[in-house]
Amino acid sequence: MTDHPIDENEPEASGIAQLTDALVAEDRAELRHLMEDAHEADIADQLEQMSSEQRRSIVDLVPEALTPDILAELEDEVLEDVLPRLGDQQIADALSEMDSDDATAVVEELQDNRREDVLSAMSDVDRKAVEDSFTYDEETAGRVMQREFVAAPDFWTVGQVIDYMRAQGDNLPELFFNIYVIDARHHPTGYVPISQIMRNPRDRKIADLIEPVLVTIPQNMDQEDIAYQFSKYHLISAPVIDVDNRIIGMITVDDIVNVIQDENTEDMLALAGVSDAGLTDTAMSTVKSRAPWLFINLLTAILASFVIAMFQEQIGTIVALAILMPIVASMGGNAGTQALAVAVRGLAERDLTRANAVRAVRRELLAAVFIGLIFAVILAGITYVWFDIPKLPSVIFIAMIVNHICAGLAGILVPLGLKRAGADPAVASSVFVTTVTDVIGFFAFLGTAALLLF
Amino acid sequence: MTDHPIDENEPEASGIAQLTDALVAEDRAELRHLMEDAHEADIADQLEQMSSEQRRSIVDLVPEALTPDILAELEDEVLEDVLPRLGDQQIADALSEMDSDDATAVVEELQDNRREDVLSAMSDVDRKAVEDSFTYDEETAGRVMQREFVAAPDFWTVGQVIDYMRAQGDNLPELFFNIYVIDARHHPTGYVPISQIMRNPRDRKIADLIEPVLVTIPQNMDQEDIAYQFSKYHLISAPVIDVDNRIIGMITVDDIVNVIQDENTEDMLALAGVSDAGLTDTAMSTVKSRAPWLFINLLTAILASFVIAMFQEQIGTIVALAILMPIVASMGGNAGTQALAVAVRGLAERDLTRANAVRAVRRELLAAVFIGLIFAVILAGITYVWFDIPKLPSVIFIAMIVNHICAGLAGILVPLGLKRAGADPAVASSVFVTTVTDVIGFFAFLGTAALLLF
Repeated sequence: MTDHPIDENEPEASGIAQLTDALVAEDRAELRHLMEDAHEADIADQLEQMSSEQRRSIVDLVPEALTPDILAELEDEVLEDVLPRLGDQQIADALSEMDSDDATAVVEELQDNRREDVLSAMSDVDRKAVEDSFTYDEETAGRVMQREFVAAPDFWTVGQVIDYMRAQGDNLPELFFNIYVIDARHHPTGYVPISQIMRNPRDRKIADLIEPVLVTIPQNMDQEDIAYQFSKYHLISAPVIDVDNRIIGMITVDDIVNVIQDENTEDMLALAGVSDAGLTDTAMSTVKSRAPWLFINLLTAILASFVIAMFQEQIGTIVALAILMPIVASMGGNAGTQALAVAVRGLAERDLTRANAVRAVRRELLAAVFIGLIFAVILAGITYVWFDIPKLPSVIFIAMIVNHICAGLAGILVPLGLKRAGADPAVASSVFVTTVTDVIGFFAFLGTAALLLF
Repeated sequence: MTDHPIDENEPEASGIAQLTDALVAEDRAELRHLMEDAHEADIADQLEQMSSEQRRSIVDLVPEALTPDILAELEDEVLEDVLPRLGDQQIADALSEMDSDDATAVVEELQDNRREDVLSAMSDVDRKAVEDSFTYDEETAGRVMQREFVAAPDFWTVGQVIDYMRAQGDNLPELFFNIYVIDARHHPTGYVPISQIMRNPRDRKIADLIEPVLVTIPQNMDQEDIAYQFSKYHLISAPVIDVDNRIIGMITVDDIVNVIQDENTEDMLALAGVSDAGLTDTAMSTVKSRAPWLFINLLTAILASFVIAMFQEQIGTIVALAILMPIVASMGGNAGTQALAVAVRGLAERDLTRANAVRAVRRELLAAVFIGLIFAVILAGITYVWFDIPKLPSVIFIAMIVNHICAGLAGILVPLGLKRAGADPAVASSVFVTTVTDVIGFFAFLGTAALLLF
């Protein structure tokens, strides 16, 4: 079908090649055919991996091929390319077909001045659902949830629930796993997995099957906390409640998997000093997402240079100090980064808490002393062999131990401190930790040298 | 009930305090009561955050309180403390009650010499299920899957499926979301979500409701790839097939959420040079997980020192070089780490593929030139003001641009190269990248200085 080489680990490569071929040939029928046949998630992936120009051209050629299913799968950056090229009515119809959580995500990417037009092309009921979502903050339960769910009172029987669902038909959510049991005031009091409904006789009372709702999600809960609840309690879905404890929607685990991935990406990039970056970004946005942190790093590097400048006389006399300096800084920086990554990950997974923080700090300290000793001995030996300077091995021995202890402590105390102050422990930690290890590393090394060698 | 302060973000803190109080008082009844009342996931969390000694004491006091539900929730490190203190029969009974995936995870943590004893205390059927799991490699579908699933031929009706499930009762999996449709040779040909079974009349043919199975998981697929399939296609469950395409088990999304978290932890720690670390580790295992990478880092730091040593004459003459050196290295190192984190994350999420690798590299290069220019100008200005040395600003200007370009390219090319070579792009990338930025950074700076200033 195509002579592009196919990597078995990347089946989508062949899909992209086919789409590209059809695009170059401006073969509308083939494009339509390819996009209909593949799974919407595959099409979304392929569009994501093309250049902006390519995907814009595809939309221009076959706008009708962007089905609601595909639109619901697209990432924000891709939506930004696609939506301006679709008509208000097409978008409005697509929104009406989607579950409300997907519709909200699409509307978020519409330009402000188009939102009105698109929304007014929707039916009153569908528009209201979308507008309601926007009364909640971004990345909170109210935004992430879908309004479609199945609820039943506890005095119903299995048969009544089944009949109710058959009658509802298309008004039911596309996928659901639990029936929420509610009281007269719409408070969720428990749930019944639908597998339980299926394996029980029609006359069995719902009240006999009810399992207590362990986790209800308040409408303003942050999505990171929602993800933690899902992961900890192995939830498949959970009801969202308003301030009066009334059920107003539900969140399902398939949406939470994406939240977990997004939060992990955010943490990993934050640790590396990248403010936010998708691979569909342009070079300019790459610069914008990285330059600020590099600027802060420049300031702390200059701070470290001031420390070195304090000892320029000594360095001028014994150049070996300049040669060894970067080793001390590099070892301290890396040890600090190790401790930091473990601590940030522990905080994110709620493994590191107040209950065991003191024990964790003590363990870091002990490990730092061990590691410091190991590398102090090795480096003192290397220095002894390399340079014929009395006492220089002792200088580096002392500097390594001091620096490793500071690195280990900074690596765990900085994120713990940020967390306690209510900040994201991943975001600014690296700057603090490398500042500590650089400044203290150089000062310990050059200061000890000034004391012992001069 | 307790006067320990409670952080509302850490409700488990109060649970731990209560357990600890009961432990200190050796109050068996209270311990049993606390562990029965709380959710098994909460108890597992609390045991995890206690010290080894504390949890061993609890098990010694009330071994019977470690129910199968709790055992299924415990992390490996906690199981290592707990299992040696439970009797063979208690473990065997617990294994028989668990879904097969949970049972396998527990047996993995049993000492080799106890496995036989525990397994022989189980019924033949249950033992066989566990033993079968161990014929598959760790972290593959065969190990991760559960053997319990529901399958039906496509000529059945909705009513027949419901009657079949009612008859099966306890032999069904604890939770399931799809009925797999199989042909006479047990090949999965499609699936029906149970919500579809529920909303359709009893006489509706399964064949009318069937949705094609998009993703079948081969028995030897790695869990990271399984997680990708679940995340991409929003799967709730997927059938596992053997080499003859016969269905042999299923994997559900709640287990995959844990796999995703584990893989993310692995990547984040690997990037920071930590080989593997749980927070329940001892100081000794912390040292073991970090020292090897620090040792490699020492070797590369020494390599960088050799570069500096090549220019010791120049440094002895112009000490300003020693003062500025760490700034060049630090900026390059950080820029490289930024590019690396974005690339590793892109590879992990399959956003960075062969299809768009060339475009991504081009964008990194362009961004590196921009960023290099910005900081070259800033740093040249600072150098001009700080030091009264002609041409030194030009030296640092050139060094910054060279170093940023090398950092950006190394940051993306190293993980791409490792991936293509079949290695984990997260594991050794940092060493390579920082070696490049250190060695090239020092060489560009000191080499340019030697050319222009002397």
